[in-house]
Amino acid sequence: MKRVLLTIEYDGSGFYGWQRQQGMRTVQEEIEKAIEKITDRPCEVQASGRTDAGVHALGQTAHFDLPCPVPISKLAGVLNSLLPLDIVIKKAEIVPDDFHARFSIKSKTYLYKINTSEKKNAFISRYTSQVTYPLDYQKMRAAAKIFLGEHDFKGYCASSAVTSDYHRTIYDIKISQKKNELDIEVEGSGFLYNMVRIIVGTLVDIGRGKLTVESAKKALEGGDRAYAGVTMPPNGLYLKCTKY
Amino acid sequence: MKRVLLTIEYDGSGFYGWQRQQGMRTVQEEIEKAIEKITDRPCEVQASGRTDAGVHALGQTAHFDLPCPVPISKLAGVLNSLLPLDIVIKKAEIVPDDFHARFSIKSKTYLYKINTSEKKNAFISRYTSQVTYPLDYQKMRAAAKIFLGEHDFKGYCASSAVTSDYHRTIYDIKISQKKNELDIEVEGSGFLYNMVRIIVGTLVDIGRGKLTVESAKKALEGGDRAYAGVTMPPNGLYLKCTKY
Repeated sequence: MKRVLLTIEYDGSGFYGWQRQQGMRTVQEEIEKAIEKITDRPCEVQASGRTDAGVHALGQTAHFDLPCPVPISKLAGVLNSLLPLDIVIKKAEIVPDDFHARFSIKSKTYLYKINTSEKKNAFISRYTSQVTYPLDYQKMRAAAKIFLGEHDFKGYCASSAVTSDYHRTIYDIKISQKKNELDIEVEGSGFLYNMVRIIVGTLVDIGRGKLTVESAKKALEGGDRAYAGVTMPPNGLYLKCTKY
Repeated sequence: MKRVLLTIEYDGSGFYGWQRQQGMRTVQEEIEKAIEKITDRPCEVQASGRTDAGVHALGQTAHFDLPCPVPISKLAGVLNSLLPLDIVIKKAEIVPDDFHARFSIKSKTYLYKINTSEKKNAFISRYTSQVTYPLDYQKMRAAAKIFLGEHDFKGYCASSAVTSDYHRTIYDIKISQKKNELDIEVEGSGFLYNMVRIIVGTLVDIGRGKLTVESAKKALEGGDRAYAGVTMPPNGLYLKCTKY
């Protein structure tokens, strides 16, 4: 038995998210089915975390235990030939037996893509979220600083988030812009449910002058979701990479 | 009553093609529903031709009769605000009452996008078709010439194509390549069912050395589909533009 870590890219627009759900097309099920074709045994793949319906991944990571001797250098290629076109195994590597894709994690980076063009484009709506209001990028960059470091993020998660500890650490937020694309990258120790989408929504609301930095701070300090910005839609969100 | 011509872009990957079908998401139905919201009357939109499930459009054209006075300069914008994100009206213009999107047509241009990279990419599979065999572009360009002009294309359509006249005229075939993308553009007077996908498949089969130009000619002269190449999948196909 060898524990294997997969690095996975997927177009989330054709899936009901990562997690296996009866009767739904999910990334987890597609990958487990592909592995089971090789091993002929039931397999459970553990991801660094779930992604919602419509959310993409450039570098999701997930581990599983390989019960039979498959050369690790061939594994990604074989899996890719068995997987549908919208899932790609970018890397497969052996990790120690006590490694865990979720619990061994040091940081995770999400990327949120915003299309700032005023024109509708039929081909990018699955992959970016359109914001047609003028945005003040300087204000957004300044506001991003309030999130850095360790905070209680109770005001920045969906009310349905179930956890006993709302503390998370944000290591970095990068805002970069090229033509009509605004990219917001958030690296943190971990994220609560909808946390990235609400942080990005708060930055957008500040950038368009709908929300003040003071209100965003209040949501952070008082834990009251009502003072934070909107939850951005899932289609602009990418799990970019994980660090162990 | 004014006859209006729409120029339409759509991402075909979320539709069961252009034509209205009970219980299916189609481009025609979405556009008709949007127009009916404005006019409050039943509407039928006539396209230059149907596109299959998964086939995209950069410039599909379709006409309908507008029964109420809506300023034509505002129509595209209003429709876009009512339409889903994967359909965009690029232009709306008044045309003569006897104009017909299908019957008034002079030529149609289709674009077929092939990804020649050996790597799988989760994000482009809906929009290109991957060909990993090495292709001889010079051979493909030379072979493309056999299709130019008027021919009986019985050997280059699906057996399910229903027509009394298989004659069509191909005005131009352009093959261009940039990095890992091979674009094949075919302009013609009109196309039979699957005709572009079979012409492109024939050029690909010739390019990879699986089929001879002689065989392709035989299919063209004898009308026997068996001598032509494969039918390429729908996802790489775009209706680029129409001319009237």
